[in-house]
Amino acid sequence: MKKLINAPEAVLAEALVGIAAAHPELNVDHVNRIIYRGSPTREGKVALISGGGSGHEPLHGGFVGLGMLDAACAGEIFTSPTPDQMQEATRVADSGAGVLHIVKNYTGDVMNFEMAAELAEAETGVKVASIVINDDVAVEDSTWTAGRRGVGLTVLLEKIVGAAAEEGRDLEAVTALAHRVNDNGRSMGMALTSCTVPSAGKPTFDLPDDMMEIGVGIHGEPGRHRVALAPAASIAQQLVDPILADLDFTQGPVIAMVNGMGGSPLIELYLMYGEVARLLETAGVNVARSLVGNYITSLDMAGCSVTLLRVDDELLGLWDAPVNTSGLRWGV
Amino acid sequence: MKKLINAPEAVLAEALVGIAAAHPELNVDHVNRIIYRGSPTREGKVALISGGGSGHEPLHGGFVGLGMLDAACAGEIFTSPTPDQMQEATRVADSGAGVLHIVKNYTGDVMNFEMAAELAEAETGVKVASIVINDDVAVEDSTWTAGRRGVGLTVLLEKIVGAAAEEGRDLEAVTALAHRVNDNGRSMGMALTSCTVPSAGKPTFDLPDDMMEIGVGIHGEPGRHRVALAPAASIAQQLVDPILADLDFTQGPVIAMVNGMGGSPLIELYLMYGEVARLLETAGVNVARSLVGNYITSLDMAGCSVTLLRVDDELLGLWDAPVNTSGLRWGV
Repeated sequence: MKKLINAPEAVLAEALVGIAAAHPELNVDHVNRIIYRGSPTREGKVALISGGGSGHEPLHGGFVGLGMLDAACAGEIFTSPTPDQMQEATRVADSGAGVLHIVKNYTGDVMNFEMAAELAEAETGVKVASIVINDDVAVEDSTWTAGRRGVGLTVLLEKIVGAAAEEGRDLEAVTALAHRVNDNGRSMGMALTSCTVPSAGKPTFDLPDDMMEIGVGIHGEPGRHRVALAPAASIAQQLVDPILADLDFTQGPVIAMVNGMGGSPLIELYLMYGEVARLLETAGVNVARSLVGNYITSLDMAGCSVTLLRVDDELLGLWDAPVNTSGLRWGV
Repeated sequence: MKKLINAPEAVLAEALVGIAAAHPELNVDHVNRIIYRGSPTREGKVALISGGGSGHEPLHGGFVGLGMLDAACAGEIFTSPTPDQMQEATRVADSGAGVLHIVKNYTGDVMNFEMAAELAEAETGVKVASIVINDDVAVEDSTWTAGRRGVGLTVLLEKIVGAAAEEGRDLEAVTALAHRVNDNGRSMGMALTSCTVPSAGKPTFDLPDDMMEIGVGIHGEPGRHRVALAPAASIAQQLVDPILADLDFTQGPVIAMVNGMGGSPLIELYLMYGEVARLLETAGVNVARSLVGNYITSLDMAGCSVTLLRVDDELLGLWDAPVNTSGLRWGV
């Protein structure tokens, strides 16, 4: 295993030290492993909290800031944060307007965020709502999930719902919007190589040199099938077709993301985006906005995912609204 | 070779198609392989042009936009663009105030930019100045370079000098500033793994599982030495020590960058930044600004580089000035 680390068990703690050093605009709670905005949530603003296993950076800590999250709880690599972490983040971030928990659909995350919500409501009277994201069309049920997994749509949802909270919408409205985004987005990913979790010390799965995994999960969970390595045009089709088969994206504008899994160079992601854009045009899908890069990664996995989200003028306006995080920044 | 491509010889052309699709705010000349800002250079503004072999994305195309470059010429992967490309970019980007060529010190780039400058001056009367960046402390002379190589400082220089050009400084002042930045910046990189150039189809160099290359170039050129794999703290020291030995960084604030080579996940880059920040603090170096992420990459190489730049209030102000590119964006 070749990694820029000191010891497998210290990766998260030491990465948080680096994040704190690089981002004086954030507050890092090293004991509870929570990343907050530098200033408290504005009174009357709904707080948005997310979190999950680490190893998907910039998600979620890189999306804390104006226009997106108020706090992110970092679990060990590919391991859910604890209810204690989430409860603490909820308590600190609440400004009296309530807190939305943004949860990717993995069994551990869902269970722990539910428990945290109950504890926070019982002990400190915070109003908590939650959204469980399940945009991955690849598989129903998986290694760590009942139902569909939550993947790339999380990035888009945190941006759009974050803008709505910044506008001052109340908890009910923000939660309804989160459900609307989740209902209108779909994703599908693929891997050319496995990732290597530091504590495991070896690749999560074996993938022969001439094969790829279509529908892979962001922790290397199995996808739909393992197929022969193919050109980018074919890979794009194998990702876009299942998405378009699952939801009609031809009735209005969409936001399209080609996301890197962490180990694929940007030049390849742009090449993939060219293929995806061509397929969408042929299918009569109108791309209003796009995002290409590493936004929700799987450590050093080579590969990519495609996310499509149906939008209207309201959602586009929220997408375009100012955002000031290390992972996404515009308009400020 | 596992890559998100169709054919090795088509990678650049097809990536440019994806860049054009993803960035309607840019103009992509697919024939000459030049990325321009969407609107012509403002009259009286010095135009900044850079370019080089592809495979280092987001450099340079990802730095075209308000506050940085006016145009970027894309060569084949790890291959200099031609004088024709550079001449065309110079001709198109010039608004009458002259053009600065920002050149990384590689023999092909330097020769071709020189030829392009002569042709542009002779044929269209454009005033051209140039800066050759040579910040890499690792080695004197290398596979493709006489003298020191130009590496990570290029990112910082394009940002700072871009802000000065945006302010309306003339060609002489902009060029003098570029030399000042180059004189005050130093870099050093390392590789855990080789990269694989698509047309070669196999790793550029062999590196045993228990070894790393200290001082590696951004095309996989040999560095200072090959040593045993070490913890991040030791890697940081092996990068920071030669930089601090080469120039005194203790007399004022610095901008510090930990840059990923393309295949290393962001969580590791932050961990490395924590180590670098600690070493700098111990050495009495005052970090005023930092940048952590993939900015000048080497395809899928795993590894990182460290860049330090001595700054004063003027340079810090130019660093903080608005920039609106896909690779760096703030203040807009």
